[in-house]
Amino acid sequence: MLVPTSPLSLSRSLATEATHTPYAKLSGEDITAFASLMSSPSTSIITTITPSESSSGVKPVQADELDGFNQDWMNKYKGHSQCVLKPKTTQELADVMKYCYEKRIAVVPQGGNTGLVGGSVPVEDEVIISTANLNSIREFDEVSGTLVCDAGCILEVLDNHIAPKGYMMPLDLGAKGSCHIGGNVATNAGGLRFLRYGSLHGNVLGLEVVLPNGEILDGLSTLRKDNTGFDLKQLFIGSEGSIGIITGVSIVTPRRPSAQNVAVFALDSFEAVQNVFGKVKSHCGEILSAFEFFDQDAFELVQGHATAGVKDPFEARHPFYVLIETSGSNKDHDDEKLSGLLEELMEGGSITDGVMAQDETQVGSLWALRESIPEAAGKYGSVYKYDLSMPIPKMNELVLDMRARFEERGVIGKDKTIKTVVGYGHIGDGNLHINIVADRYTPETEALIEPYIYEWTAKQNGSISAEHGLGVMKAEKIGYTKSKTSVAYMQKVKDLFDPKRILNPNKYLPAQRS
Amino acid sequence: MLVPTSPLSLSRSLATEATHTPYAKLSGEDITAFASLMSSPSTSIITTITPSESSSGVKPVQADELDGFNQDWMNKYKGHSQCVLKPKTTQELADVMKYCYEKRIAVVPQGGNTGLVGGSVPVEDEVIISTANLNSIREFDEVSGTLVCDAGCILEVLDNHIAPKGYMMPLDLGAKGSCHIGGNVATNAGGLRFLRYGSLHGNVLGLEVVLPNGEILDGLSTLRKDNTGFDLKQLFIGSEGSIGIITGVSIVTPRRPSAQNVAVFALDSFEAVQNVFGKVKSHCGEILSAFEFFDQDAFELVQGHATAGVKDPFEARHPFYVLIETSGSNKDHDDEKLSGLLEELMEGGSITDGVMAQDETQVGSLWALRESIPEAAGKYGSVYKYDLSMPIPKMNELVLDMRARFEERGVIGKDKTIKTVVGYGHIGDGNLHINIVADRYTPETEALIEPYIYEWTAKQNGSISAEHGLGVMKAEKIGYTKSKTSVAYMQKVKDLFDPKRILNPNKYLPAQRS
Repeated sequence: MLVPTSPLSLSRSLATEATHTPYAKLSGEDITAFASLMSSPSTSIITTITPSESSSGVKPVQADELDGFNQDWMNKYKGHSQCVLKPKTTQELADVMKYCYEKRIAVVPQGGNTGLVGGSVPVEDEVIISTANLNSIREFDEVSGTLVCDAGCILEVLDNHIAPKGYMMPLDLGAKGSCHIGGNVATNAGGLRFLRYGSLHGNVLGLEVVLPNGEILDGLSTLRKDNTGFDLKQLFIGSEGSIGIITGVSIVTPRRPSAQNVAVFALDSFEAVQNVFGKVKSHCGEILSAFEFFDQDAFELVQGHATAGVKDPFEARHPFYVLIETSGSNKDHDDEKLSGLLEELMEGGSITDGVMAQDETQVGSLWALRESIPEAAGKYGSVYKYDLSMPIPKMNELVLDMRARFEERGVIGKDKTIKTVVGYGHIGDGNLHINIVADRYTPETEALIEPYIYEWTAKQNGSISAEHGLGVMKAEKIGYTKSKTSVAYMQKVKDLFDPKRILNPNKYLPAQRS
Repeated sequence: MLVPTSPLSLSRSLATEATHTPYAKLSGEDITAFASLMSSPSTSIITTITPSESSSGVKPVQADELDGFNQDWMNKYKGHSQCVLKPKTTQELADVMKYCYEKRIAVVPQGGNTGLVGGSVPVEDEVIISTANLNSIREFDEVSGTLVCDAGCILEVLDNHIAPKGYMMPLDLGAKGSCHIGGNVATNAGGLRFLRYGSLHGNVLGLEVVLPNGEILDGLSTLRKDNTGFDLKQLFIGSEGSIGIITGVSIVTPRRPSAQNVAVFALDSFEAVQNVFGKVKSHCGEILSAFEFFDQDAFELVQGHATAGVKDPFEARHPFYVLIETSGSNKDHDDEKLSGLLEELMEGGSITDGVMAQDETQVGSLWALRESIPEAAGKYGSVYKYDLSMPIPKMNELVLDMRARFEERGVIGKDKTIKTVVGYGHIGDGNLHINIVADRYTPETEALIEPYIYEWTAKQNGSISAEHGLGVMKAEKIGYTKSKTSVAYMQKVKDLFDPKRILNPNKYLPAQRS
């Protein structure tokens, strides 16, 4: 809860650390103090508050100029922060963080603000500390493929930077043109190539983190192996800005493949999808870099609502589609492996139809069939997005079950509350994305879906957040996936790093009732 | 420091938690209590102490019957524990742990006891809790390749179990016939295939851990992706038994390659080794599964002292050797890639000679050239083993520098204090193993090597423990690699889980002076 505090109530709140006590209300004095800690206050501070001293160089702006920071890109979550800070160096960020810690000012860290669970926007009026101005590539080693960069570097910019040197980023996701690598790490982003290159827990070599009290945890190691003590950086990977702000990232990047193939198959059933997955793994083994599926409803959504240019490559519509990508070092070998696979799949009747990209443009067009789904959903309506892990055979069952649930209630249809339910995702990772497109966000619609969908997932020992994180959307839902003992230790970890609980409050972990 | 405690001093020590206070001295009453908590006391408890009640079923043994538990396999570290507990279930282990916590009895967890830094043997008379009786394979999913097993399963047993199903363990190391998977995880073992399959931080999906107070952290998830809160299991990977005892492991296993090739090259210089590494990576890309180097002294050591059967496949001796292994899904493709590589290497003069295994037996013989080095060193003398990470170009420089250091002092030679200095390791991971074979372990010899070798490594921003861990050997040396802030937070993490500091005392982290 945010309430204005007097110095008295502030000091009282400090005495009861780690309970939900009020945060300090931002004042003109605070803005002046921020200005004194930053090298270019006029461009690094955006605020609606008039600083206590005009010499600070900060001119207050209208509230709507902060909308882009207060609101998430789905227009689902909106806070009302009055101040955005964009430090230019790690030290500046540490200095403002230390100030906020001393004053008990609540802070939300923000990267590219492309998250899907409301983790990067304020819930109330937290100060937003953006990593947008921390955007230098610090070093790239062409022998080892190790990249060290600021947290605010955009994923695609990094990928473009290392491409001419023969390397690629080990993760790829739809938001690559906007998301920051620091945000990727803070949310443990998975994405399209997880199947091949694995988790950030394996690929991140080191982190530089500003802790809530302004201390800098300097762990920007470039070593592939280092067994000296607890691997603290692992705690920050996927911590969603709850115990520190990542300011620098050291990451190992794989060789950019010299050969890449993309094919899309049409299939009759979800059983066929699973069957094909097994065959693809044994035929393409080490060169498989993506295995994505999407159902007919997802496909139709893209055909109807995505940006122009996403054409249906098939003559008919099919119940399921699979996109596979191979990445290897020898084009001839890869082509041979893929032709062998295609032949077996067609002959055995595992697939109904199939297309293979013949050039870079076609690679893009085929990928667009899969990558345009979230965008198309967003254009069609207000999207309830669920990102779940579960045993592969269960993935489609849930989609069918949700549709049946809405049909029973008569709420699904073009002009009804629920416009469509689409399923897609990363088969190889057991990661289902289910998008429920509604006419608008309402508590009633949410109640139709939740907690039902979480309970369903928990029954399969699944995860209610495979890769999107918890944010504000699922902070209170963690119990569906994690045990009470685990959550209790997570609370202790939170308190260890952020005893005043000023970082990203009301998110990630359940509120502690005092 | 271990001193006998009276109830008074024990209660005082409890009041000053997290400082170095005395642990309780084990008594006959404790043995009787352990017996009451275990299902088969007569086989699960090995102790020199007479239980207070003869009905416990425990017969005391002679002290030397505990030697195998008190002593590490290098005969470098030896404690004097009077009691080994081998619980048969996680619950039994949790019950005895809880008892030890309440009584403040110090405990050392022990797996296969194959560690190299004295981490798995007592320093004084800690109770040893062995995972030897936790050795069931709980489940293996043939579709996803996910293995769930007890911590006491032997690595090679697991590999043999999943081999017929077409899978393999994602790590491989010399000690595979004895080491426990729980110990592998607790020490974040790297090994020979790290280059291809990556770190346990990426491969371990879930852990079941008994905490110092006896609580069970049940996180045996088999999900590949799960972003619900802090990834607590990561803290236990590489924690060396300092904050919990791993009792169960869930791990993702890769497909067993249907084609495997091994070749050994002879080279003139370390520059050639690095040069060949670049070429191998571009030719063999996704099929490369190992790239190991060893120098001539390591080679000669194996020829002179390894178990019979490790023959020199070359006509002459060479300054450096490289072993490469490829693992793929198509034998013809892999052979073609490797032949192309060999041709280029021979023609370009990058290598002086080379042999390629023609069958399984030859695969074994070539691997033995590399894998026999530690064993040969152990047979030749008392081995000071260092396991360091650093930039690849520096790896051989350190070996040369150490030899020069000993030569300057006239202490190196067949019949001198230092018998030989050999360098080998995992080029791809920047991981150098340097073995200094001495006539015996003495403080004077150690002083010739340390802290010099750590300072040297720290100057290269290297790690003083790439994969072996810290144990008792390097607990006080962590500052060479980690910052003061990092170590301070590690101490806080230790206190969070083990406020009485009963687990693996005097190891892993520097002692806290009160």
